[in-house]
Amino acid sequence: MSRTETALIVGAGKGLSASLARLFAAEGMQVALAARDTSKLTELVNETGALPVACDASQPDQVTALFERVEKAFGAPDLVVYNASGRYRAPLEAIEPQKLEDAFKITAIGGFLVAQAAAVRMLARGHGTVLLTGATASVKGLPGSTPFAMGKFALRGMAQCMARELAPKNIHVAHFVIDGGIASSARGSEDGDADDKWLDPDAIAREYLHIHRQHRSAWTWEVELRPWVERF
Amino acid sequence: MSRTETALIVGAGKGLSASLARLFAAEGMQVALAARDTSKLTELVNETGALPVACDASQPDQVTALFERVEKAFGAPDLVVYNASGRYRAPLEAIEPQKLEDAFKITAIGGFLVAQAAAVRMLARGHGTVLLTGATASVKGLPGSTPFAMGKFALRGMAQCMARELAPKNIHVAHFVIDGGIASSARGSEDGDADDKWLDPDAIAREYLHIHRQHRSAWTWEVELRPWVERF
Amino acid sequence: MSRTETALIVGAGKGLSASLARLFAAEGMQVALAARDTSKLTELVNETGALPVACDASQPDQVTALFERVEKAFGAPDLVVYNASGRYRAPLEAIEPQKLEDAFKITAIGGFLVAQAAAVRMLARGHGTVLLTGATASVKGLPGSTPFAMGKFALRGMAQCMARELAPKNIHVAHFVIDGGIASSARGSEDGDADDKWLDPDAIAREYLHIHRQHRSAWTWEVELRPWVERF
Amino acid sequence: MSRTETALIVGAGKGLSASLARLFAAEGMQVALAARDTSKLTELVNETGALPVACDASQPDQVTALFERVEKAFGAPDLVVYNASGRYRAPLEAIEPQKLEDAFKITAIGGFLVAQAAAVRMLARGHGTVLLTGATASVKGLPGSTPFAMGKFALRGMAQCMARELAPKNIHVAHFVIDGGIASSARGSEDGDADDKWLDPDAIAREYLHIHRQHRSAWTWEVELRPWVERF
Repeated sequence: MSRTETALIVGAGKGLSASLARLFAAEGMQVALAARDTSKLTELVNETGALPVACDASQPDQVTALFERVEKAFGAPDLVVYNASGRYRAPLEAIEPQKLEDAFKITAIGGFLVAQAAAVRMLARGHGTVLLTGATASVKGLPGSTPFAMGKFALRGMAQCMARELAPKNIHVAHFVIDGGIASSARGSEDGDADDKWLDPDAIAREYLHIHRQHRSAWTWEVELRPWVERF
Repeated sequence: MSRTETALIVGAGKGLSASLARLFAAEGMQVALAARDTSKLTELVNETGALPVACDASQPDQVTALFERVEKAFGAPDLVVYNASGRYRAPLEAIEPQKLEDAFKITAIGGFLVAQAAAVRMLARGHGTVLLTGATASVKGLPGSTPFAMGKFALRGMAQCMARELAPKNIHVAHFVIDGGIASSARGSEDGDADDKWLDPDAIAREYLHIHRQHRSAWTWEVELRPWVERF
Repeated sequence: MSRTETALIVGAGKGLSASLARLFAAEGMQVALAARDTSKLTELVNETGALPVACDASQPDQVTALFERVEKAFGAPDLVVYNASGRYRAPLEAIEPQKLEDAFKITAIGGFLVAQAAAVRMLARGHGTVLLTGATASVKGLPGSTPFAMGKFALRGMAQCMARELAPKNIHVAHFVIDGGIASSARGSEDGDADDKWLDPDAIAREYLHIHRQHRSAWTWEVELRPWVERF
Repeated sequence: MSRTETALIVGAGKGLSASLARLFAAEGMQVALAARDTSKLTELVNETGALPVACDASQPDQVTALFERVEKAFGAPDLVVYNASGRYRAPLEAIEPQKLEDAFKITAIGGFLVAQAAAVRMLARGHGTVLLTGATASVKGLPGSTPFAMGKFALRGMAQCMARELAPKNIHVAHFVIDGGIASSARGSEDGDADDKWLDPDAIAREYLHIHRQHRSAWTWEVELRPWVERF
């Protein structure tokens, strides 16, 4: 593809989003990074030349503004990744309803708003890729995990609807079940053991890129990833 | 069991909820029916002697008031059914975010608030059953079904978390995948054909009762029900 | 139903099959019990009045003879249960291919031959129920469980094909995932603790009967059963 | 990786196996092709320089001989693909038991023998990849598909057991659900329409290679592939 591609990563921070930004930039894409607080993106922006955009993805008007900002800078995105989560967990009787709703807004409503905004623009152009980050809790509801699982199950349901609805219109929607902890420099130093017992965010990022580049005669709508030593 | 059992059905109306109310009353239970608008329950209340309670299940304080009302009248419920849904469907690009959030509040937040209120009281008493009504969209995300599937996937994720968390505490949580249309007098007369090509709400109600009465050495957390002629 | 029903249980012995035989007889059914070695059935036959038939269900001619024997004594069966398993487990590198094939013959080929013979006769009469006993290994392949899982996955695949193919012809095919150990008098005395931490075979038998009696407007093709304290 | 890798493809013929052979050869691997009838491999062998080996994979001694032949020529294989199927389909009442058993031997017993032989050698060397080809019938039992589904469900059960058992020993086992028809020159000319409504075997082959090369901190045990226009 000779034209420069544009990628938008929502929920950007350290970890997976940073690895995605570095990989997409290294592949020659124009990269935009959206986060509620862009101050923590400074280093990554300096390193990758990415465009930082402040955005609370659970607010429809802010998502609209985000896409307008990216289109103005780079054109409509070819690849959109939603990578934000509200990680609220508690035993059933201790869950505070407002905190559950807040977590759901980040995990699922934000995912919907970003995916819808992406899809509308991709339908107009006739192509595109939307990648959604899930977790163990997307497919397995464990004790203490009710609020997180509600958001992640909902995001997966949305991904499956979108995959079925949009694939025949040449838009590739895929959902990732990240089944294990993601390595971080902090985690590495705490543990002091094998560096691949946690998911390497650079390795995950390569899987996202691979799905974006799949030939449309052989598309995958869901990818499970876990470390070789992880029990499942 | 010599003691009279109490059942609470939330999302009461015609159809499945009415069949549940009749069956539970016929089995000697004290029955409470919660709906946003209780005026449509008059006939059913007259027929079954059930207690009608006005309640918007998506509002925490109204759910608290509902349980207090039922406890005052009958004692804490032994069996709670959540049977309300926000049935909003639309193609992805036409979905209105506010309508999606409203539908989610009814399908999933209401289900959470009722299940949590039930569980807290059941944990205190050491037993109880919580039954949650799902649909095809609980396990399969079809085109045009994004808002409905997001709510129903979330409710199922919650049900699975609760089943794992509460079963060892002697509380039976089960989720029903109602995979097909439910018969109604209206539907019957329109179609004019076999009366069992749709799900008979009385037959579904017997399945709910059966799960409530399962021996705890052989519990089921999820039940799929579909008409014999339904494709799947 | 005024006519006396006939039930055939294949893989009969102690445990679940004995509970099924007792329950079906108590419900007024004519019961036939098939096992490779009928000498161990004497007590159960005396207790229930069931007809014992010697049969190696992995042999087509023996299965044909079994159904002819039952039909001659009672008429064609209304309810057929396949409950035999080849429980061979070993780490991958230690599996002996012949033992794997032998186990598969009992678990899956026998299940196929019995289900096919049942279905042919039920299709001719226009109704019937076929119930197939699975295990955790029907849906989850665990380390060391390859030969058992191959047979149980195959049996489940067959059950799903049959359910889809035969339901619209008024034949109810259902598969049970028995997710836990079944209690036995031996096991009970060894453990000396709560009698419901294992699956009670009488409780399982009631679930089989319930599925046989489901109204066809609300059929279930798969039932998971596990003790309340079982992790999943 | 500086050392030359060896790949063994079992069930070789036209279609996917040919695409795998070409891709692996182009990537610099030494390739062995096993088929019951190697005469049909002549063109592919000439094109890729692969080693053809005659083998009925359902026979333990022939599988042993196959691995000895490959080891002698190239050393133990780093990557083994099982790609053979017994595609016998029939309505339930028309299935011939012997044909069902024959089909099962090819689909599942052959898969087991090859995977076991590969795993034993890979355990000794401390690494390796085993890839198993499934189909829609691996996860969905459709009417008329009983014999094929029994074999494919069994192969998937085996793959899941092996993945759980061998991943922590650094052997990557993965199962592919090929959910759609694979394009062929014959099929293309019959249809005369879009060349990507069927799965392109070269595109599938790239997915197999990708899984072989995944970083072990982010392994996938199952991959679903379907054409963009396929309904699911």
